[in-house]
Amino acid sequence: MATTPRAWLAEVLLDLLLAAAYVSDAQYSRNVPFETSPQAIRLYYFYNHWLMRGATYFFICVDLSLALFEEPAVFPLPFLATSIIEVLCLTVFFGRLIHFAKVTPQMVFWKDTKNICIMVTIALTLIDLIIYGSLEAVSIHSVRWSRALRPVFLINVPESRQIRRAFRSIRNTLPDILYVFLLFMFSVLIFSLMALKLFGDRGLKTVEGSSYFTDILEIAFELYVLVTTANSPDVMLPAYDFNWWYSLYFVTFIIINTYIFMSVFLAVVYNNYRKHLKNEIRKLVYLKRHKMIEAFNILKVKVGTEFVVKETEWRQLTKVVAPDISTSHLELLLRISDEGQKGHVDKMNFLRLADLLNIQVVTINVRRHPLEAWVPRVYQSPASLWVRKMVQHRIFVWVFDVIILINAIFIALDEKNPFISYAEWLFLSLYVIEILLKLYTYEPRAYFGRKQFWNWFDTLIIITALVATVANATIQSARKYNSQQILDIVLILRILRLLRVIISIQRFRVIVTTLINIGPTMLMFGGLVLVVYYAFAIIGMEVFQGKVRFFEPNSTAPDSLVCGNPALKGSTFARDRYCKNNFNDLASSFIVLMELTVVNQWHILAGGFALVTHQAAKLYFILFHIVVVILIVNIFIAFILEAFFVAYSLEKSEVETAIEKKIQELGVGIQEEDMQDGKLTDNIDAKDSGFMGDNGDNKRKASKGLYFRIASKKYRTVDALLQRMFECEIAPEDEGPSLDEILNFSPSDIYLKNPNFENTA
Amino acid sequence: MATTPRAWLAEVLLDLLLAAAYVSDAQYSRNVPFETSPQAIRLYYFYNHWLMRGATYFFICVDLSLALFEEPAVFPLPFLATSIIEVLCLTVFFGRLIHFAKVTPQMVFWKDTKNICIMVTIALTLIDLIIYGSLEAVSIHSVRWSRALRPVFLINVPESRQIRRAFRSIRNTLPDILYVFLLFMFSVLIFSLMALKLFGDRGLKTVEGSSYFTDILEIAFELYVLVTTANSPDVMLPAYDFNWWYSLYFVTFIIINTYIFMSVFLAVVYNNYRKHLKNEIRKLVYLKRHKMIEAFNILKVKVGTEFVVKETEWRQLTKVVAPDISTSHLELLLRISDEGQKGHVDKMNFLRLADLLNIQVVTINVRRHPLEAWVPRVYQSPASLWVRKMVQHRIFVWVFDVIILINAIFIALDEKNPFISYAEWLFLSLYVIEILLKLYTYEPRAYFGRKQFWNWFDTLIIITALVATVANATIQSARKYNSQQILDIVLILRILRLLRVIISIQRFRVIVTTLINIGPTMLMFGGLVLVVYYAFAIIGMEVFQGKVRFFEPNSTAPDSLVCGNPALKGSTFARDRYCKNNFNDLASSFIVLMELTVVNQWHILAGGFALVTHQAAKLYFILFHIVVVILIVNIFIAFILEAFFVAYSLEKSEVETAIEKKIQELGVGIQEEDMQDGKLTDNIDAKDSGFMGDNGDNKRKASKGLYFRIASKKYRTVDALLQRMFECEIAPEDEGPSLDEILNFSPSDIYLKNPNFENTA
Repeated sequence: MATTPRAWLAEVLLDLLLAAAYVSDAQYSRNVPFETSPQAIRLYYFYNHWLMRGATYFFICVDLSLALFEEPAVFPLPFLATSIIEVLCLTVFFGRLIHFAKVTPQMVFWKDTKNICIMVTIALTLIDLIIYGSLEAVSIHSVRWSRALRPVFLINVPESRQIRRAFRSIRNTLPDILYVFLLFMFSVLIFSLMALKLFGDRGLKTVEGSSYFTDILEIAFELYVLVTTANSPDVMLPAYDFNWWYSLYFVTFIIINTYIFMSVFLAVVYNNYRKHLKNEIRKLVYLKRHKMIEAFNILKVKVGTEFVVKETEWRQLTKVVAPDISTSHLELLLRISDEGQKGHVDKMNFLRLADLLNIQVVTINVRRHPLEAWVPRVYQSPASLWVRKMVQHRIFVWVFDVIILINAIFIALDEKNPFISYAEWLFLSLYVIEILLKLYTYEPRAYFGRKQFWNWFDTLIIITALVATVANATIQSARKYNSQQILDIVLILRILRLLRVIISIQRFRVIVTTLINIGPTMLMFGGLVLVVYYAFAIIGMEVFQGKVRFFEPNSTAPDSLVCGNPALKGSTFARDRYCKNNFNDLASSFIVLMELTVVNQWHILAGGFALVTHQAAKLYFILFHIVVVILIVNIFIAFILEAFFVAYSLEKSEVETAIEKKIQELGVGIQEEDMQDGKLTDNIDAKDSGFMGDNGDNKRKASKGLYFRIASKKYRTVDALLQRMFECEIAPEDEGPSLDEILNFSPSDIYLKNPNFENTA
Repeated sequence: MATTPRAWLAEVLLDLLLAAAYVSDAQYSRNVPFETSPQAIRLYYFYNHWLMRGATYFFICVDLSLALFEEPAVFPLPFLATSIIEVLCLTVFFGRLIHFAKVTPQMVFWKDTKNICIMVTIALTLIDLIIYGSLEAVSIHSVRWSRALRPVFLINVPESRQIRRAFRSIRNTLPDILYVFLLFMFSVLIFSLMALKLFGDRGLKTVEGSSYFTDILEIAFELYVLVTTANSPDVMLPAYDFNWWYSLYFVTFIIINTYIFMSVFLAVVYNNYRKHLKNEIRKLVYLKRHKMIEAFNILKVKVGTEFVVKETEWRQLTKVVAPDISTSHLELLLRISDEGQKGHVDKMNFLRLADLLNIQVVTINVRRHPLEAWVPRVYQSPASLWVRKMVQHRIFVWVFDVIILINAIFIALDEKNPFISYAEWLFLSLYVIEILLKLYTYEPRAYFGRKQFWNWFDTLIIITALVATVANATIQSARKYNSQQILDIVLILRILRLLRVIISIQRFRVIVTTLINIGPTMLMFGGLVLVVYYAFAIIGMEVFQGKVRFFEPNSTAPDSLVCGNPALKGSTFARDRYCKNNFNDLASSFIVLMELTVVNQWHILAGGFALVTHQAAKLYFILFHIVVVILIVNIFIAFILEAFFVAYSLEKSEVETAIEKKIQELGVGIQEEDMQDGKLTDNIDAKDSGFMGDNGDNKRKASKGLYFRIASKKYRTVDALLQRMFECEIAPEDEGPSLDEILNFSPSDIYLKNPNFENTA
């Protein structure tokens, strides 16, 4: 078809781009079916550009943060301003959607609920804006209900895969959880009836003096609160004071409902989470393989009896997919993929490319210390050698641990004492000296390597503390008073420095790195919580705004003790001074919702807001408890459990082993044992001086001084771990079911042998 | 060796007894190495007799309940009486130990820590009794410290295997948990320092008016309480009222410590629990097989080339092991074990005997309804047939569900109304009629079959309610007043009747039966909690007894508002009227400890008791929180999770399948599909009338009317489920490692490939 050389070249280039798009999608587990026309491919590249994605997220943030500026506002802006910004955001989202429509086939576009959701939300928001604006123009105040829909944009951008997965997981858990929940509510009702009969006629009084357990609805609410443990033991006391035996009623209630039912909720959520997670991951793995096969089919040429990809094409492809890859890294990957150095890569090895690219290989340039190059005589002098030996010594670490502990004691003491204030400068200089000594001993570029988290942490804390302390001292001497904000920052940094102790205790470091490892996925839960909080906050603000007001502690306003609302007179809400827990702006609402998530005293908050509005307001708080505590927090716990178990039970993957073997074969590796966490820098240095000195067993690459190692397991994402778990179960030859089948996997496919909850017992 | 026929017979009998002892040990997973001398074997049988075991438990209960009668007593008894009873108990325990020493080899006896523990505890208790008694004689009051050791007896009787396993599990978890705990405490301390610096100098006041966050120890305690969420959001409010931004400090604290660290605790506990559980179960399975091989070796004779056990010996053995086994059941087992009907059982099949005996095969005597035999004409009359059809109909169930719901509404209404009081009689008679109708329709012995839990439940509730209502009515009419206790019981029974609704909703019944299924093992946690509670209660009583006193609400005692202790003046403890939460007797102490387990408001209890004694008393409460909430409750949750997962993922075992196959083969089975839970009785009846009528496909056994089925999965214990899980992993031929090796298994043996926590990251 390609008639002129130029057209032929263009076509080859296009093929390359298309294949690279597939590989890139496989690498980042993207799942966007795109058109294969030249224009669509270019648009697709543009669609995936980090600038475009960044801009989308930026406008989502802007859209969400509008709630800060709208009535009830933290920083009020006129309606015109916020509505113009909102329309702008909507335009951007719509533009992004149009862009997406150009990339993806029409059929797929209209079948995708994500797109429909975004379009409907845009339409609804516009309608709401117009209605609200016109009513406002004639001075009628209405409700901006569409604001609660804003998180829809955050959920439905293609990049929020993890949040959507969590929502899907919740949705799939609902049927199972529903029956447990109904049974649980039934149990609460039975107990409520018993309480009514047992205590209702006794004429008992609560501590506040109100009647005790006389109304069935009130009892049901109190008992629901008892399940959350928030009113234990107060709710029991009147009955217990009356007769010892009645405590047995409450003990039974707590064992059945708080302990057993709540554990069953966790078990059901966890079980479903695992089930669906496995299904999702299976889908991801098959999709990845599917895309890699597509890419292979584009680039394949026949050599002998089998189809392969030529080395040149392979190089170009990899360069396109990972533009930042270093030449040495590329060579390494080629050596792994083209085992026999035949000049081409076969299908099996080609399919691994996405995985190979996903494994972070750290290229370590073992170089001499710059000082050694500049002033070799001084750097190699006995004094210098002694210093370097000292810094590498265990005692050096211990000495600084002791210094940190002394520092902690000084911090705990009163700093008004000028002596202690001066000691602060001493400590700071000691820390700076420590870092300088380390930089003198270790090669600076290795010390600040990409994955040397603790070194970075250490240095950043010290430098910021130094800057802040100096700034504070300057302001203090200039204006004779302390700037509160800077002082607070200095204080916090000074204390964060103590975290360095963790670095020297191996076991602590292990736990912390495990936590940091699952950090990114925990952020996903942050997104999930944000979505739910936002929706609840908007509703809360519409319903409760202005009902409870906060007065400064020394305010003389007549209602200041009852939060500006006489309905709260004599309530626990007012007695405990909960006035600032209100829905008068987005920030306050979030704090209230956070307190509700922590559960304790939520019934007092619920009771307070019910008093100033209506008893039905308690439903809002109960609903929040069910959604956030019973569903989301349990999913969070399930996630942490699973993440820890996966981290416990994982060994190296096949692909990783292949890379490592090749690295060892080429003699450019650093021994696994040498790179035990944290001591890496020491060892590189030790090795460095080693092969600079007499024994030279690193023959081949010694001159280049270039080493590879696989980035430590600690820095893997949970998703990658999970994918690996399932990959072991798929044979490498297995090309998986067809694309349609993959997309329609249901969890029951995996669990055919393990019937689920309803069918077991 | 056996010279006379009589001696020979005695020896054969002895061999049989020895083999039966091994099989019985294997069946009940007992692990007591016993001497094989004739006398020892007889003693061993006596040792395992249910009367002996029952007596041991009885005396343990007596010993533990002594705390109710000793100062501070619920029902005071003189010291002489309690000490005589205690000495009696100790004598029994010692006697049991002597008995055990006679049974087991000396070497094993002295190496067993259980026995040493019991002996040391007996000695210590005696010493304490003597010292306390002599001091008491000269009127010096001392401390009966040995009382806290009493749970040792409960833990160390050989039958408390499950409790010991739980303790071992806790002990094994400690090293891992310790480091997480230290890191967690470090984090709390860092945050405490920050809080001191950020809030200490602000001059803020708490709601109670005391100074806010000025003392580092106090801050650490408050923050520890915040981790348990018990003082959220109150602890945050002063800082939050002062400046909105300070809430971020608390949000960060809660996310890190409450959510992440607490989940990590659960993850670590759960992971260790699983690891050790698997190890323990593996040990059990190997021991079982080991014992069965011992039994086989005693009874084996050579037939042809292989060793086998003759049918007669096999029969005798089974009769000795399971004296209550029915002849038909025995025949069934023989047919399974002696597949080819060769007159002997080979090794493979013999080893399965313990498992076979453990599988409950329900023998169902399909008999005609007694009425059919007595008055066939009436019972088969059209009217009678219509009644029976009606009772079996779905609508019959629905009608009674509606009646129950109406009943619930009546209960909720005021019963002072005489009309409603009469309605109660109506409902009761309706329920009685329902049961009579069912008994008329279904064969009574099938209806009250051993495993028909719900039928029993139903009938028991109704009969007790009937008896109690009648009793109450009699007392009421005779003495013109209501007996409070009987009235309470009537009320509760009346409401428990509502639980019958669960029976008609399939999904509810499934959840409930799963819970009932894991019930026995949950009781083990009851034992664990009892042990810990008892020790803490004894210590608590010694330390806090009499410091806080309860006064009746209308008491005029001057100190009644401050619980009899002026130190509590103005405290939250007194304000919330927590006076009855004291350690003045065992019952009250248990209630306080229960409240501490529920966690909420524990800091108020801790604060109150610290005020009346010393601030250090808070350590008691913190320790209790760590032991009970962080360790035991987490293990409980881990257990529920695991139990649910095992229940989800289990299929039929090999042995069960063999039995079922044989049952089907012999044509004496009831189709699995027919016996879906609850409907069993209907189906038996349906089948019954079926083969009484025209179609007679149950040819062979029809005349006998005898059916087998495997007791439904629901009634398996978790232990059995777990054993099965691991049994799949051992090949049937594998005789396992030597006995010594088995006993010294450590979890790392299984997890060689999965390095544990310290080595992973």
